[in-house]
Amino acid sequence: MALIVKKFGGSSVSSAEKIINIAKRILSEKQPDDKIVVVVSAMGDTTDELINLASQINADPYKYKREMDMLLTTGEQVSISLMAMAFKTLGQEAISLTGPLAGIRTDAVHTKGKILDITPKRVIKELDSGKVVIIAGFQGCDELGDPVTLGRGGSDTSAVAIAGALKADFCEIFTDVDGVYTADPRISKNARKMQEITYHEMLEMARLGSCVMQPRSVEMGKLLGIPIHVRSTFTMDTGTIIREEYTMEEKGFVIRGVSHDEKVVKIAILGIANDTDMEHMVFASLAEENIDVDMIVKSIHNIEKNVADLVFTVAESDFPLASEIVKKLAERVGAREVVVDRDVAKVSVVGVGMLGNPGIAARMFGALSGTQIGMDVISTSEISISCLVKQDLFKKAVNAIHDEFFPVE
Amino acid sequence: MALIVKKFGGSSVSSAEKIINIAKRILSEKQPDDKIVVVVSAMGDTTDELINLASQINADPYKYKREMDMLLTTGEQVSISLMAMAFKTLGQEAISLTGPLAGIRTDAVHTKGKILDITPKRVIKELDSGKVVIIAGFQGCDELGDPVTLGRGGSDTSAVAIAGALKADFCEIFTDVDGVYTADPRISKNARKMQEITYHEMLEMARLGSCVMQPRSVEMGKLLGIPIHVRSTFTMDTGTIIREEYTMEEKGFVIRGVSHDEKVVKIAILGIANDTDMEHMVFASLAEENIDVDMIVKSIHNIEKNVADLVFTVAESDFPLASEIVKKLAERVGAREVVVDRDVAKVSVVGVGMLGNPGIAARMFGALSGTQIGMDVISTSEISISCLVKQDLFKKAVNAIHDEFFPVE
Repeated sequence: MALIVKKFGGSSVSSAEKIINIAKRILSEKQPDDKIVVVVSAMGDTTDELINLASQINADPYKYKREMDMLLTTGEQVSISLMAMAFKTLGQEAISLTGPLAGIRTDAVHTKGKILDITPKRVIKELDSGKVVIIAGFQGCDELGDPVTLGRGGSDTSAVAIAGALKADFCEIFTDVDGVYTADPRISKNARKMQEITYHEMLEMARLGSCVMQPRSVEMGKLLGIPIHVRSTFTMDTGTIIREEYTMEEKGFVIRGVSHDEKVVKIAILGIANDTDMEHMVFASLAEENIDVDMIVKSIHNIEKNVADLVFTVAESDFPLASEIVKKLAERVGAREVVVDRDVAKVSVVGVGMLGNPGIAARMFGALSGTQIGMDVISTSEISISCLVKQDLFKKAVNAIHDEFFPVE
Repeated sequence: MALIVKKFGGSSVSSAEKIINIAKRILSEKQPDDKIVVVVSAMGDTTDELINLASQINADPYKYKREMDMLLTTGEQVSISLMAMAFKTLGQEAISLTGPLAGIRTDAVHTKGKILDITPKRVIKELDSGKVVIIAGFQGCDELGDPVTLGRGGSDTSAVAIAGALKADFCEIFTDVDGVYTADPRISKNARKMQEITYHEMLEMARLGSCVMQPRSVEMGKLLGIPIHVRSTFTMDTGTIIREEYTMEEKGFVIRGVSHDEKVVKIAILGIANDTDMEHMVFASLAEENIDVDMIVKSIHNIEKNVADLVFTVAESDFPLASEIVKKLAERVGAREVVVDRDVAKVSVVGVGMLGNPGIAARMFGALSGTQIGMDVISTSEISISCLVKQDLFKKAVNAIHDEFFPVE
């Protein structure tokens, strides 16, 4: 017997037919004594349609965040009721519960709520009576009982948090890919599906550009100690299990994967008098605008004149605002110039195995120089090493690094 | 200052534009200190669309009544959130509350729930803070917190019940007609809009075929002592106020209105031995199938042989089942024959004024015979007199009776 939470996204439940197929699939895998909780998102384009409706009332409906939550939470409520009917039609007792009915309590930050705690009494009661329990993802309620949505990645987070509250054996996240790969399989044809990966590595890969899982739900899994099984909606194969530590021999690879991110821009502030408080000013101003900064490098290129350069990267979407802020500050402190380079991509290796394996950076850079790929700005974290390469070379770079660490047998 | 509950049906809120117009209309009538609660139904065809979606999962989705309630309650939740946004866009603070958030507790009879009690703490708090409060009609929740819909006429009932819980000054029901008329204005061009009518008369008129208001909400109004103002969505005119007693002189009309019902069928069981328990058997069997029986007449046409006839009417929609049941019973007790007449319509006069005015029946029948309209089966209640006429004569009958009691000045 196992207690399993299974999460399906909006595209998996976008029609009555798909909902019935998901119910059939779940029943085909269910062992007689298994307790199953299904977490679902709103059907297909429902959320967009509701937002469109609200836009007809006010061009900027997100001004009214509480009312947007009142509106948008109906989306999942529709899909849970239909999913429950699908199970019942197939002869399996089932019941749907909204986030509030499942005991999911959030703060009152509408449209971007955080789960405060889950009291799953009702869920446990319904599971114990032999029902499959279908819970609306992406939602809970605040102290007043008002509906609150969880914001981006919220459905995965709901699923993992519910699994934690129920002390489930694991949480299965069904997606359109069949697991986590050692590199993006669309770029590296030698990429392999991992059987396991640690939370820490998965978070680092997500931060460095792999978009299989939102970091938020992985953090929740780590916090609550719930293994997360990432697998495909379309096949019955085992996917990748994200957990605290490896349980299987994974052939002792020192790195777990190669990540990349094309959507970065390099900003360099050159010729700053080193006694100005430039770093603090820059990063505080960017943080105020919620702009994340990565790969920070400072170099003092002329010790005598005490002049330094400050280089860092930001996400492409943050670039226009970041560049504006930086140019103003640079002018104010009399920096020589600001150089912006959009023709870059970040390539990274990630793995807890690199702790105590000092040769990893050398092997990575060796692989790049061996294929005549120049690199720029290098940065490291505890379990990753990243560098920038030219945009048009990033696929070649990913393959070169991947072949170095995961040789084709 | 007044506390007013205003109810708008689905056709009044079927698009974003209509929702904005309703909000504008409400604000144009609002006095600065008025406290306003708005009760709304689901937008236009939403409920039908949701039922259609459920039918794609199971051809008979109403088998799963709890899940249907989970599904259908989303309809009003969408309209309340949009209505709240509309008020806010117009500069009026507003908040939407689902039935459960408004404190509407029901029994657990899904799809046909009854309101048990209302605890309007939250509603009062929001009104006191200056907000217009928009509440989802047609819904509440049971002891578990599960959504329950109120069934037919439920939105009007919600509105009146909320008005009662808030001790509102009155409840306004906005409809596509502008009030209650002395006869159906589509049939009688001399029909006049009433300023007032009592609950008792309104209930009797509804029972006898006038469909301006569902009896259920009128009963609720009577029970809670809430005056109900029936008025038009499309004009600003005063409509008709339904209340316990008249507050205005209404020129001493002895009857309040003429009702009609074309959708009735007469069933006659002829030649029954009078010592059989035929009445009990017939009406018990019909009641078991939830078939309402009206205008019951028993006549003993041959005292010597002790043989009787039993005549009554049923609604057209109940006719096939009723006729089947009656024919079987008639055969069992050896009645001579069963005669069915579908070519009938019921015409009635209603008014508390007829208590103590013995000449009403004579005037009604005089008006009919004066225009050569034959009548059949006659029945009376405390405040009404009904008879059957031929289908093709019922409009003529309504006009003849109306002109008798409401002479054109």
